[in-house]
Amino acid sequence: MVTTYHLGSNASLGKDVKIGCGSFIDDDVIIGDDVTIGKYVIVYSNSHIDEGTIIGDHCIIGHPTKLQLQKTDFSACSSKVRDFIIKEPVTKIGRGSIIRSGSVIYKHVIIGEKLRTGHNVLIREHTQIGDNCVVGTNTVLDGYIKIGNKSMIQSNCYICQTVIIGNGVFIAPGCVFMDNKKIILGEGLNGATVGDYVRIGGGSKILPNVKIGGYSLIGAGSVVTRNIRKGTMALGNPARIKRILNKSEIQNYIESIKNWTI
Amino acid sequence: MVTTYHLGSNASLGKDVKIGCGSFIDDDVIIGDDVTIGKYVIVYSNSHIDEGTIIGDHCIIGHPTKLQLQKTDFSACSSKVRDFIIKEPVTKIGRGSIIRSGSVIYKHVIIGEKLRTGHNVLIREHTQIGDNCVVGTNTVLDGYIKIGNKSMIQSNCYICQTVIIGNGVFIAPGCVFMDNKKIILGEGLNGATVGDYVRIGGGSKILPNVKIGGYSLIGAGSVVTRNIRKGTMALGNPARIKRILNKSEIQNYIESIKNWTI
Amino acid sequence: MVTTYHLGSNASLGKDVKIGCGSFIDDDVIIGDDVTIGKYVIVYSNSHIDEGTIIGDHCIIGHPTKLQLQKTDFSACSSKVRDFIIKEPVTKIGRGSIIRSGSVIYKHVIIGEKLRTGHNVLIREHTQIGDNCVVGTNTVLDGYIKIGNKSMIQSNCYICQTVIIGNGVFIAPGCVFMDNKKIILGEGLNGATVGDYVRIGGGSKILPNVKIGGYSLIGAGSVVTRNIRKGTMALGNPARIKRILNKSEIQNYIESIKNWTI
Repeated sequence: MVTTYHLGSNASLGKDVKIGCGSFIDDDVIIGDDVTIGKYVIVYSNSHIDEGTIIGDHCIIGHPTKLQLQKTDFSACSSKVRDFIIKEPVTKIGRGSIIRSGSVIYKHVIIGEKLRTGHNVLIREHTQIGDNCVVGTNTVLDGYIKIGNKSMIQSNCYICQTVIIGNGVFIAPGCVFMDNKKIILGEGLNGATVGDYVRIGGGSKILPNVKIGGYSLIGAGSVVTRNIRKGTMALGNPARIKRILNKSEIQNYIESIKNWTI
Repeated sequence: MVTTYHLGSNASLGKDVKIGCGSFIDDDVIIGDDVTIGKYVIVYSNSHIDEGTIIGDHCIIGHPTKLQLQKTDFSACSSKVRDFIIKEPVTKIGRGSIIRSGSVIYKHVIIGEKLRTGHNVLIREHTQIGDNCVVGTNTVLDGYIKIGNKSMIQSNCYICQTVIIGNGVFIAPGCVFMDNKKIILGEGLNGATVGDYVRIGGGSKILPNVKIGGYSLIGAGSVVTRNIRKGTMALGNPARIKRILNKSEIQNYIESIKNWTI
Repeated sequence: MVTTYHLGSNASLGKDVKIGCGSFIDDDVIIGDDVTIGKYVIVYSNSHIDEGTIIGDHCIIGHPTKLQLQKTDFSACSSKVRDFIIKEPVTKIGRGSIIRSGSVIYKHVIIGEKLRTGHNVLIREHTQIGDNCVVGTNTVLDGYIKIGNKSMIQSNCYICQTVIIGNGVFIAPGCVFMDNKKIILGEGLNGATVGDYVRIGGGSKILPNVKIGGYSLIGAGSVVTRNIRKGTMALGNPARIKRILNKSEIQNYIESIKNWTI
């Protein structure tokens, strides 16, 4: 019977922590009170999991980066990504979070309180996420990303490197962000910037370097190739501004997410 | 050597059941004759796996809902999803099914005979699936969904809550269903309704509340924003009806899936 | 404590091989020098993993095909896929590869040197991949596929059966390839053919039987319904040729991937 788990040296466990069978908790891990860790979870060293957080079965927390896997030098890092670097090789997950089964969270990741993920989410290195966010099933945050508070990225999305997402943003399922227009390696690498309270409809594609102004609404299935002005509704392939949103439309959205608990 | 598995109390195993190393079979699980369960599979309590079914490695069957994880009250449930509720906290998988590796199936899910899934499929709570269906790799059925018999949803699709899919439906890879047009939380939540023998081309987006009439064909890459009349071909962004399908075109499709065994 | 692994009979291990806890190495597996295998990895029989390769946690290598699971006869195989058949039931992974966590690679798969995958990649049976390729997170290669050298398929893509991808091809995230235009089962099954040094923008859909000529560039979010002439830029839904690429545009791309090491 496999009813035991591995606990590394110098790992610190809070009160009433539950750890499922087969889980592997590496050295120098800090786990807060009332944390629940599922079965066959791997928590690598220097991970901090705050109180009340639930980690689902088969998750990997503190996954090493490629640089750590291959012992490569870090100095190759481009100027484009410099602002995103999280120097300490830690993974911090704020209190009250739910990380669902099969998710993988890298080192050099700092996450606020009450993140809720779907299953099989990937959060790569040098990513910072605020409080009260949601990241849906199968969504990839491909590293070097900043996300504000109360933002929600639904299932099956791909968010490329150097994307900045504000507060209260809603990204519907199946959206794809790109970082390199001409697909010439080494050139470009400019993710989009998404302002506060933006809503992006399902299956939209956002090209590199695009700025989507705050409070805008992008229609489902759009291909956003140019900047979108603040507070407008845009849609189509390529996305064109259809009209300016009125204040109550924007206010209704902002109100609706005030007390959300999805 | 990890060559053993955990078998909970009051678990009922049929004849010639095979269970792989490291698997965890919880209390009150019922497993029929000739079932094969892979390695590191987790089967939570109140799961019924019927005869001849194969469960791949690393699967999770009977995953608890958020309500069960957090002990929240169930009464908050909106009227929109009421028709989809499966009261008993069970997971039933009909005989002769193949659930491929890494898939997660929740509690409150009832599945007919001979479901075949790809890998890493997610089937959330309050979902009912008929006989002889297929759900492809990485596809998400996000809960509160009904699917008829002989329907096939291919890989990398996202099916949102309150979608109803008829019999003999084919949904090609990469399709996205949405449930909330204005993305104002709490409003909307109306998935599409897809009639019998509909075919939806790859990468299509289906907006909330849309009704796709039986026997229709939606072209690949379409964005379906309005109802589509029965027996028509529609395509584009936004999808427009191109022509009425003739009887033989519809009949050829129906014949082709009569004896499928994918 | 689960700090052991299972090693089958007649398994051959090179020098300095590391195998993580809970991993299951089946009979008749050949593992080269300096290979690192993560935790809870399953390596089925007849897998050959060459020197220096890293296999991430929770991966499955040498996954049996449906035919092997169900003991079905192989003779039903259509003429369309005959050219893709890899007769030996082996899985070969060339030296210096990195297969990231949660990935599943089937039997009847032959992979060259230095493949790097993201997480949760699926590579099904009868697939051949050259040297120095990349397959991104959650991408599905659905079997009966040929890929040349130095090609890169990014995250969340779906590549259907009988697709042929040349050398130096770049496929951005979220692309979907389809194999059956009318979605009549048994008919069609003709994947696209993608020439050398083609670049395909994110979220594009490629219809069955399409030929994309070498050196072409497909814009993001396109729906490619017809053949695209060599060396052209095409985009839109449906994709239309916008202009002929000039030599330096093509040369810049080719130069950029010469020394890539992503």
